[in-house]
Amino acid sequence: MKLIIANDEKEMSAIAAQHLLGYMYKEERVNLAITGGTSPKGTYEILAPQVKGKPYFSNVHYYNFDEIPYKKEDREGVTLSELRKLYFTPAEISDEFIHPLDQHNYLDQDKRLKEDGGLDVLFLGVGADGHYCGNLPQTTKFGDLTSRVENDDRLKARILPEFNNVEEDVPDYYITMGPRSVMAAKHLIMIATGTKKAAIIERLLNGPVDENVPATLLMLHPNLTLIIDKDAASQLK
Amino acid sequence: MKLIIANDEKEMSAIAAQHLLGYMYKEERVNLAITGGTSPKGTYEILAPQVKGKPYFSNVHYYNFDEIPYKKEDREGVTLSELRKLYFTPAEISDEFIHPLDQHNYLDQDKRLKEDGGLDVLFLGVGADGHYCGNLPQTTKFGDLTSRVENDDRLKARILPEFNNVEEDVPDYYITMGPRSVMAAKHLIMIATGTKKAAIIERLLNGPVDENVPATLLMLHPNLTLIIDKDAASQLK
Amino acid sequence: MKLIIANDEKEMSAIAAQHLLGYMYKEERVNLAITGGTSPKGTYEILAPQVKGKPYFSNVHYYNFDEIPYKKEDREGVTLSELRKLYFTPAEISDEFIHPLDQHNYLDQDKRLKEDGGLDVLFLGVGADGHYCGNLPQTTKFGDLTSRVENDDRLKARILPEFNNVEEDVPDYYITMGPRSVMAAKHLIMIATGTKKAAIIERLLNGPVDENVPATLLMLHPNLTLIIDKDAASQLK
Amino acid sequence: MKLIIANDEKEMSAIAAQHLLGYMYKEERVNLAITGGTSPKGTYEILAPQVKGKPYFSNVHYYNFDEIPYKKEDREGVTLSELRKLYFTPAEISDEFIHPLDQHNYLDQDKRLKEDGGLDVLFLGVGADGHYCGNLPQTTKFGDLTSRVENDDRLKARILPEFNNVEEDVPDYYITMGPRSVMAAKHLIMIATGTKKAAIIERLLNGPVDENVPATLLMLHPNLTLIIDKDAASQLK
Repeated sequence: MKLIIANDEKEMSAIAAQHLLGYMYKEERVNLAITGGTSPKGTYEILAPQVKGKPYFSNVHYYNFDEIPYKKEDREGVTLSELRKLYFTPAEISDEFIHPLDQHNYLDQDKRLKEDGGLDVLFLGVGADGHYCGNLPQTTKFGDLTSRVENDDRLKARILPEFNNVEEDVPDYYITMGPRSVMAAKHLIMIATGTKKAAIIERLLNGPVDENVPATLLMLHPNLTLIIDKDAASQLK
Repeated sequence: MKLIIANDEKEMSAIAAQHLLGYMYKEERVNLAITGGTSPKGTYEILAPQVKGKPYFSNVHYYNFDEIPYKKEDREGVTLSELRKLYFTPAEISDEFIHPLDQHNYLDQDKRLKEDGGLDVLFLGVGADGHYCGNLPQTTKFGDLTSRVENDDRLKARILPEFNNVEEDVPDYYITMGPRSVMAAKHLIMIATGTKKAAIIERLLNGPVDENVPATLLMLHPNLTLIIDKDAASQLK
Repeated sequence: MKLIIANDEKEMSAIAAQHLLGYMYKEERVNLAITGGTSPKGTYEILAPQVKGKPYFSNVHYYNFDEIPYKKEDREGVTLSELRKLYFTPAEISDEFIHPLDQHNYLDQDKRLKEDGGLDVLFLGVGADGHYCGNLPQTTKFGDLTSRVENDDRLKARILPEFNNVEEDVPDYYITMGPRSVMAAKHLIMIATGTKKAAIIERLLNGPVDENVPATLLMLHPNLTLIIDKDAASQLK
Repeated sequence: MKLIIANDEKEMSAIAAQHLLGYMYKEERVNLAITGGTSPKGTYEILAPQVKGKPYFSNVHYYNFDEIPYKKEDREGVTLSELRKLYFTPAEISDEFIHPLDQHNYLDQDKRLKEDGGLDVLFLGVGADGHYCGNLPQTTKFGDLTSRVENDDRLKARILPEFNNVEEDVPDYYITMGPRSVMAAKHLIMIATGTKKAAIIERLLNGPVDENVPATLLMLHPNLTLIIDKDAASQLK
């Protein structure tokens, strides 16, 4: 594992963007699975203007690694919508380079990734509870491939804000690449900032591997880069 | 994961040897951790004469990944002794290329491997109970680095044959690279042959990841090659 | 450069086969350009039975790097015919994995290779005059991509034996990947055996780079493995 | 070859810095040979503050690839002095990570680089005459390793400005890694900006390989990235 402690969120975002660019500048096809959410916002703000309109990034293919569909399935799911807003639209990534994972194709996701040459990079955040992608505590198991997770009331309450608190939009299930699928990526780049992540970072770096703290597994990936800021590192000795 | 099903143990041994040679022929330094035991015997019989006296293998460094010391510590431990007999001596590997792990230096093993550039390949077998290296069920945890495992009566009985049933030689503990250390290798090559391994192979390929079946974790390594024979594959669909 | 000196042609053939297998065992797609001629015969005799009928080699794609068409174009060219006889037929490689280069598609060869991800390995011999592929002295220039070379009388005489001395079959031109195309491969594996190659091997290893000795350029490839036997090494100090 | 055309010198500098950072962020040792001169100035201005005081770059080792000693040898040579001023001093790189090439050790340079694991990246500019490092037209040959080049009057006049026009400081020779040494690096990153480089860039991309235009050879490296600005690209079609 490579641990990088940045001074603040802004520096973390720049360093994460440089990591992604390091791969994107390759000559051959590069497959990136990237995360939505608030953590990567700064990274995409740096990336988008550098990628927009650049023919030399036509080797880069993008994947999402989870999806929460709208209950009525009347529009694109939460993750992909968010990725479009944060990155694909400002970076003007055309649809031929975007490979959506959704409720209709999730059973093929692992096979499809393998046929595409595998993920070169999976760029993800981590929750204070140790979740990553849609692998929340008590949902998936370490051995799971891309899966459908049924939403109980706890999960429904949790994702309600993603639907602007419109309860009738909250679906009965969501889709996520499972631990087995995530571990298959060639490089994992995980980011975290802020004191609210300090305890989980300390736990990930010094604690046991435990299915109830899903991201502990990812610490065993042979090519993991963890980019955090000083606040997130504040409980490390 | 790459799964290779050979026709028989002899073909499995040849394929495993070719995998190791594929790395050894590189120009830069290559770090190999190799296994003792009966499974790799055929592999070493193929390798040793090809390696013996060849100056173009002076880039290859060897590591053992576990060690059972003699209780009186009056001679080299069981694993290294066995590796010498099976491979280092017939292949005439000089000591400058052999990096022993033992009861005296095990706390430095993970740091030392990192300083040496990391393991390129870890070549290992798997037990019918899912153990690998010295990671037997109910000994190490998924998050453990190189560790000392205390021998209870069950473990003492189990390793007694390694000491030709001389009870006074059986030590109170042994050393093993832990799951976290093994997962850090760039490539895992696991071998298995025979119907007595058929159930565990089926379990590894189709079952959940479970700390009580230690090798289930290794199935999550992004660069794992599993080389087995038809007998070991006989419970696969 | 990695230089491997085998004891004899048989050992050279085995080592070359192991090099190719080292790539073929990978999980992802592997693109191999392989040579016809007499030098690799022993290598293919070792490879073919190991590859035949093995589903775990379905990631391996094959390319030829030169072609001498029949003048009447009434059958497949000399190189591909020979590769079929030496390797594709005994190894039972199906046509979907064979990507022929010929007089009709040679202008697309470099673009096509790039789209396929580039050559992982180009496996080639070297002539006593320093030629490789169809890059004979006074034909191509160091900067040439895949090219059509016009046959003057000297060249026609030279390739006549490839046509069983039937003059009316000898074409007015042939096709070859040029020096620039060959250098673009990720790994070059060059073989040579016998005392008749001893002078050129000494020249390649110790002499200047010279367009009149085409293979001198390949000595500058950053990932070149040269596998020769003792006879071919007999003029080295 | 990967060709990247930036809008201007500033963007080129940022992209070059990102390329270098992409390597520097790795976990294992990384060996970089970097260039002096004016072309990389913007790159180092971006890099230095990001590298200064960062413990996570302790895996990065630096090499210079040429050196012009002072005639009296009373101080460090021109290249290393310049690299210190441009990068090593502002980035606070300690001497244990700087591996100088000079007139005393140049005969060992190629062997030393190989023992250190080889260069991962060689970052270089190109002159309007096609020179790179100290490989000026009519000095080194394509096959040369690290060499001492004797300064004739033409060369003395050319390097006089590097000595603030103090003639008595101009040495009788200089040191450079030769074409063979440069081609051995795993990745070449070449930069060029401005209309005064437009003709040579067009020549490199579309012309033959010619020892009198030294950088034409580097176009054959299988892992070359060429980063230029629009002005330098202005003669490309």
